[in-house]
Amino acid sequence: MDPTLTPDPERFRLPEAERRGVYHAIYGRRDVRRFRPDPVPPETLARVLHAAHHAPSVGFMQPWNFIVIADRTTRERVKALYERERQAAAQFFDEPRRSQYLSFKLEGILEAPVNICVTCDPTRAGPEVLGRNAVPETDVYSTCLAVQNLWLAARAEGLGVGWVSILKLPQLPRFRAKTPGFHLGRGRGVDHGRP
Amino acid sequence: MDPTLTPDPERFRLPEAERRGVYHAIYGRRDVRRFRPDPVPPETLARVLHAAHHAPSVGFMQPWNFIVIADRTTRERVKALYERERQAAAQFFDEPRRSQYLSFKLEGILEAPVNICVTCDPTRAGPEVLGRNAVPETDVYSTCLAVQNLWLAARAEGLGVGWVSILKLPQLPRFRAKTPGFHLGRGRGVDHGRP
Ligand SMILES: Cc1cc2nc3c(=O)[nH]c(=O)nc-3n(C[C@H](O)[C@H](O)[C@H](O)COP(=O)(O)O)c2cc1C
Ligand SMILES: Cc1cc2nc3c(=O)[nH]c(=O)nc-3n(C[C@H](O)[C@H](O)[C@H](O)COP(=O)(O)O)c2cc1C
Repeated sequence: MDPTLTPDPERFRLPEAERRGVYHAIYGRRDVRRFRPDPVPPETLARVLHAAHHAPSVGFMQPWNFIVIADRTTRERVKALYERERQAAAQFFDEPRRSQYLSFKLEGILEAPVNICVTCDPTRAGPEVLGRNAVPETDVYSTCLAVQNLWLAARAEGLGVGWVSILKLPQLPRFRAKTPGFHLGRGRGVDHGRP
Repeated sequence: MDPTLTPDPERFRLPEAERRGVYHAIYGRRDVRRFRPDPVPPETLARVLHAAHHAPSVGFMQPWNFIVIADRTTRERVKALYERERQAAAQFFDEPRRSQYLSFKLEGILEAPVNICVTCDPTRAGPEVLGRNAVPETDVYSTCLAVQNLWLAARAEGLGVGWVSILKLPQLPRFRAKTPGFHLGRGRGVDHGRP
């Protein structure tokens, strides 16, 4: 066996309460669609974003952007776009599933005190990213890993996160210049259902 | 404010040591490429896979498959495919970067006691998945979130994980029937560098 490997791998296991915390966050995480209006303390938001930025990424390219949107007008435009998408999606269901679909609450864009638009910049690390040759989509994969870091850190902080993907990219106001990506609304909220 | 929201959102925050554990896993997680040969205890592997399966997914479609590969011959075939990809990728670098690239250790397929092939089945929940209308790739996004759950749970358990994406999908032995996805090798290992 490689003599430079650590002689005591057990020390890499987290202490019991910390290990429990990881599983608590994983199993206690929920997609949240109803939010309290309380503002998110800036230092809490910073911790959660910092955790997101420390995700793994192919070739260490860190292609993600997390755009924090507090501005009400922007959020209203995003919400209006969501409404169009919702109506469009409903066309693909027959009754009674259509009415059922339209009755679902699938976002909390305006209720949440903070929205975060997540995007992925495939050009971030230049044309040749180490290890991205076989599967170029690994940039988006990396960005998703960062989202899960954010989601779990938020759960640890008692913040609710809801991912809103029912939005078409090219139509997103103000983010038109951004590269392919995806979006989530989040904010201070409560877990609904299984907490 | 919605009267059905919980009156005490603070209780959703994790206890201090558990919260610390989430950040410890996030910041202490590394991509691991050198592994001890020790077998992974089946109950530990089960915990980590269970955590992966509890990731969020668009329309709750849970499109992921985690295929545990212990068989040595299969792993040798995967490793051989990796070797071809590595040589192919090297063509895109000029010297001295090419030699540098070829000197990197970018997998631990044979050293790790366990490999896991992660795939994503876009047909998992039928043709109309709730919320997948605007962005169909949300199936793969969901699968990535499951991978990050696995990566963090493994860190909590003291297991090393290394993602090997330098493999072309259609050529993967035995997984040819599987739908688009991606792969990672993992096993009992040590974090190398910043622990
Ligand atoms: C990639 C992705 C996109 C999602 N998009 C939406 C969405 O647009 N609206 C919504 O209400 N939920 C969305 N969700 C949340 C899922 O519906 C939710 O994760 C799933 O039902 C499981 O519930 P849980 O997250 O509370 O465990 C999305 C989840 C993922 C992973
Ligand atoms: C989608 C994805 C694919 C990756 N593929 C490989 C790979 O094929 N080989 C490798 O050595 N590392 C791979 N990595 C690991 C990255 O190189 C690593 O995450 C990055 O250098 C940051 O280091 P850290 O994960 O230790 O923080 C991959 C990471 C991601 C997120």
